[in-house]
Amino acid sequence: MKLVAGIDIGGTNTEIGIADQEGNILFSETIPTTGHHNPEAYVHAIGIVLRTGIVRSKSDILAIGIGAPSANYFSGCIEYAPNMPWEGIIPLAALMEKEMGKPTFVTNDANAAALGEMIFGAAKFVKDFVLVTLGTGLGSGFVVNNEVIYGHDGFAGELGHVIIEENGRLCGCGRKGCLETYVSATGVVWSAKDALREGKSIAGITNENELSARAIAEAAEAGDETAKSIVDATARKLGFALANVVAITSPSIIYLYGGVARSGDTILVPTRKYFGDYLLRNYAGKVRIELSALPENAAVLGAAALAWKAIF
Amino acid sequence: MKLVAGIDIGGTNTEIGIADQEGNILFSETIPTTGHHNPEAYVHAIGIVLRTGIVRSKSDILAIGIGAPSANYFSGCIEYAPNMPWEGIIPLAALMEKEMGKPTFVTNDANAAALGEMIFGAAKFVKDFVLVTLGTGLGSGFVVNNEVIYGHDGFAGELGHVIIEENGRLCGCGRKGCLETYVSATGVVWSAKDALREGKSIAGITNENELSARAIAEAAEAGDETAKSIVDATARKLGFALANVVAITSPSIIYLYGGVARSGDTILVPTRKYFGDYLLRNYAGKVRIELSALPENAAVLGAAALAWKAIF
Repeated sequence: MKLVAGIDIGGTNTEIGIADQEGNILFSETIPTTGHHNPEAYVHAIGIVLRTGIVRSKSDILAIGIGAPSANYFSGCIEYAPNMPWEGIIPLAALMEKEMGKPTFVTNDANAAALGEMIFGAAKFVKDFVLVTLGTGLGSGFVVNNEVIYGHDGFAGELGHVIIEENGRLCGCGRKGCLETYVSATGVVWSAKDALREGKSIAGITNENELSARAIAEAAEAGDETAKSIVDATARKLGFALANVVAITSPSIIYLYGGVARSGDTILVPTRKYFGDYLLRNYAGKVRIELSALPENAAVLGAAALAWKAIF
Repeated sequence: MKLVAGIDIGGTNTEIGIADQEGNILFSETIPTTGHHNPEAYVHAIGIVLRTGIVRSKSDILAIGIGAPSANYFSGCIEYAPNMPWEGIIPLAALMEKEMGKPTFVTNDANAAALGEMIFGAAKFVKDFVLVTLGTGLGSGFVVNNEVIYGHDGFAGELGHVIIEENGRLCGCGRKGCLETYVSATGVVWSAKDALREGKSIAGITNENELSARAIAEAAEAGDETAKSIVDATARKLGFALANVVAITSPSIIYLYGGVARSGDTILVPTRKYFGDYLLRNYAGKVRIELSALPENAAVLGAAALAWKAIF
């Protein structure tokens, strides 16, 4: 049986999986990303888990795909990731190849998710699409003619850092008005805090600490007016940014993936409406917004897809 | 000798050329785009000129490349171009292949210019770049990994219709705030008219009819304060839009091409400044803005480049 490893590195946890060509996960294990002495020790810990997985899967792996923050496809390195335990440049692919003796490929989590959608999800027959990950932040993977756009430096697809509001909210990147300060779980909570501070109320929320994107989505679904207007404003900004994106790469589908996307129609319906309002007429009726068809464990699947794509 | 034809179709004139693989134009002739009975008659008129060119060049052509407004690379058609003499869909490639018996390729003028830059200009060794055409409007060609992004429908790269100002200037596309309503010869004249109506004066301009992008650039170069502030505001909007574009495709170079670009440092210097201000730090120092290295007759060269690229 032909298998690859898919590894998803987050700031807190690292998920390690082994998958076949159909996207079946034969083995999956999670270890903490933090608490390791150095990158070598961390990669060795992953290696120990992977070797266990290989034994359990009863077949060796052909390659390893890794989705990680600030990961550079070309260099195989994690470069200056703000939420990794080690600073600077971590030569992840090289360390992993030394550890496991298998070709290793690295990209950021959103690109990996786009590859997952392409190989195991809804985009199998879609040549040009965009995948937007909506979670704590906003990530994106752009696929043109069946290939992920990596850009000249491996860091293309930072839709979350497109400025949509001059002098808008201060972003973690140091600039103001980035899309992800509005459209992400963090952005939604920010909007809710602003509303509470303006004296508005949200049903079920008695203080700021109870705020979460999920709680606001649920309040909106239950008919709370403040929550509904927050969701509407978020959808409007997302629809606006996505309409602008279409004018660059002209995809046929934009997939929404992750936490906020899981709220389903609550965010999808108004996003589609505003997207249609802002879209250049030339594209009208030719591009649609859909929810990702990837399952919950898609991060590992995306990383596995990266490996499959790279070795074929 | 190996030759191709390059044809540039504008609303007023059609330029017909024959070029070799080094970008030498061996023959060039212009005919009016208008005044022909129907598309067949128009294409036949081009064919007559082309046959003359082939005789004069003493060698047959291998293929034909055409740059035209609203041209679809995939279908080979001009689709609903607002400033062509014929409405609807014009099957340009098919008509030309029937006329000349040579494989014919069609794309919009900005994509053709990007191919010209790639094959005959400054981008010969540049894998990922963007070319922005600044003229009456603003067009763009996006190159990723040595390939023009056409998008799923052949209409990618409409940077001029990215909205940069909600509820901004009314664009010919029917929406508001598109980049080209600010950053183009038309946009600069619009800004100047606004300034005059606000009671400001521009040296050398006594009434609105004397306004042109060139006149305003010259006034700015001569030190006129109003003209300088118009150029600065234009550069700011261009720098902003280009910084956002980098977050999508991460090019290593952005080339400015055409009328406004010919003003040289007047627009280039402030555009670079604002671009740097708005750019995500991850890209700082890795991407630069340059003037196109293409000569004035580049439209025909770009169309010829399209033909060379397609047949090799």
